[in-house]
Amino acid sequence: MTKSIDVVGIGAAIVDILARVDDAFLAQHAVPTGGMLLVDSEKAEAVYNDMGPAREISGGSAGNTIAGLAALGAEVVFVGKTRDDQLGQIFAHDIRAAGAGFETPPFDKSHPTATARSMILVTPDAQRSMCTDLGVSGLLTDADLPFEAIKNSKVLYLEGYMWDRDDTKAAFRSAMAEAKSVDGEVALSLSDPFCVDRHRNSFREIVEGPVDMLFANEVEILSLFETEDFEDAVRQLQGHVPIAALTRSEKGVVVLRNGERVDVPAAPIEELVDTTGAGDLFAAGFLYGHVTGRDLETCGRMGCLAASEIIQHIGARPEQDLKTLFQQNGLIG
Amino acid sequence: MTKSIDVVGIGAAIVDILARVDDAFLAQHAVPTGGMLLVDSEKAEAVYNDMGPAREISGGSAGNTIAGLAALGAEVVFVGKTRDDQLGQIFAHDIRAAGAGFETPPFDKSHPTATARSMILVTPDAQRSMCTDLGVSGLLTDADLPFEAIKNSKVLYLEGYMWDRDDTKAAFRSAMAEAKSVDGEVALSLSDPFCVDRHRNSFREIVEGPVDMLFANEVEILSLFETEDFEDAVRQLQGHVPIAALTRSEKGVVVLRNGERVDVPAAPIEELVDTTGAGDLFAAGFLYGHVTGRDLETCGRMGCLAASEIIQHIGARPEQDLKTLFQQNGLIG
Repeated sequence: MTKSIDVVGIGAAIVDILARVDDAFLAQHAVPTGGMLLVDSEKAEAVYNDMGPAREISGGSAGNTIAGLAALGAEVVFVGKTRDDQLGQIFAHDIRAAGAGFETPPFDKSHPTATARSMILVTPDAQRSMCTDLGVSGLLTDADLPFEAIKNSKVLYLEGYMWDRDDTKAAFRSAMAEAKSVDGEVALSLSDPFCVDRHRNSFREIVEGPVDMLFANEVEILSLFETEDFEDAVRQLQGHVPIAALTRSEKGVVVLRNGERVDVPAAPIEELVDTTGAGDLFAAGFLYGHVTGRDLETCGRMGCLAASEIIQHIGARPEQDLKTLFQQNGLIG
Repeated sequence: MTKSIDVVGIGAAIVDILARVDDAFLAQHAVPTGGMLLVDSEKAEAVYNDMGPAREISGGSAGNTIAGLAALGAEVVFVGKTRDDQLGQIFAHDIRAAGAGFETPPFDKSHPTATARSMILVTPDAQRSMCTDLGVSGLLTDADLPFEAIKNSKVLYLEGYMWDRDDTKAAFRSAMAEAKSVDGEVALSLSDPFCVDRHRNSFREIVEGPVDMLFANEVEILSLFETEDFEDAVRQLQGHVPIAALTRSEKGVVVLRNGERVDVPAAPIEELVDTTGAGDLFAAGFLYGHVTGRDLETCGRMGCLAASEIIQHIGARPEQDLKTLFQQNGLIG
């Protein structure tokens, strides 16, 4: 069966609210440095009120990955829950304008819970720490899944963050079953070390089960296998999942496929501005290489190049034309 | 009487929606290059749907000026009408977080008209052209004016754009009368050449009347006096308004005060990214110099330096610490 969609991504539909803060601000609001703190709307309001002037840019981990893939010309669909409010409309506009399909029905304006928002707190070291009010994004259920698109897609890409809600977890299991029933590949991003901590057993179970492709950074993979030795984590991963990409910031990335291992260096950058979306855009570049049949090293280089673009400006959606960037670097014709 | 507020600014409370477009996009939607097209929400929706991925940053001409003044440490108050929707909350947060007072009561969530938004279309030459849905921002009336603050302010700063609605025009006349009754100064920004075209007679009348300080760019001042000769416009201005600052992009600025004239060169920049807010931030720097008693040339240099910051990034609210920038350039201690 020929599949006409490259990737269907399911994740939290979030609008990011980005502001620069100092380390004291993170401490004061107990936001873990480099991590993501889930908050209710009351706590979100308190952090927002304390924060300096901000800018709003569509985000969400899988949303960023899908937007990156669309920018590269891949056929992609995003699935995520919004409310028909101003932020929901902004999210929908931005993902569609990027070139992705997005047909998940939004909740009505009168729904008591709003579209998700994430305060992205960027410290002077360009690190981002997040304070997220999941809003309606955690209310995704089976009824929201586009099963036809999932069956018609080469890869189903899942965001680990969504494991935080039972509803979305059940939807993920249904989506995975549907993809596997027609030989689709399932990719999972571990999202963040605290998320891994909360769901270690579930993640291990699906990594050893339906997951064909795992995206994780160094801290996440160490947490998954409860080890302090990166090479030990690599060993534990091999044999359990066909494909894995382990990102290590400026140390580059280790990519694994059925016993093969390639270490790919990070792409050079001029100035590190904001690490928001680095992992998401790595996944976009890597998946683009994967669905277009590139070798493992090229997939890794594509991931690193896409990540290098996103960390040189504020926000997790590409600003440069990624296709042109890939051409300039000889990765596509 | 000692006044504890430096500047009260009245203008449209707008959230900007910034996207890069090509010149064909402007032509297709009949948006005047470098100008501002007022649209209803239906036309706004059509332009938005056609536009690429965007980012949202608080804006509004006087709002940008007040935010810039606040960043410099001036005591400032903004007056503008929002609705209590998500964009209204974003506008309110950003202007308060910048350090300005903002107490204009918003319309209730149930009001049929939304907070104003402006699609800012940035072409490859870094020029910005705007497509603005004024929303509730044009519904400002006398009842919204903080007369105590206006009386207690050295300068009342008015945005020409607000002349497009009869309600706000009436409010402007009341605010000017109040300011003049206690020897406050009235400053007016002409906003854009099309706005001048629409209201030439009114603007001439108030420039020769209550206005003490006029901000205009070259095209606007030529339009006001219906001349093609800049020096002719300068001559017509002298004697009619005590202070004027005429900005001429990379050619710098001509500042006039009671017969005195100083030509100030533009501040050097590394890369021109987006001209949105150039005039607004010039006014912020100039007014900061004025309310702190600087000489005319220093006022002009402060304006040029603030403008140079804003045109080197996307969006019309400062990203760099303006105080530090002024210190580095020896303009403040």
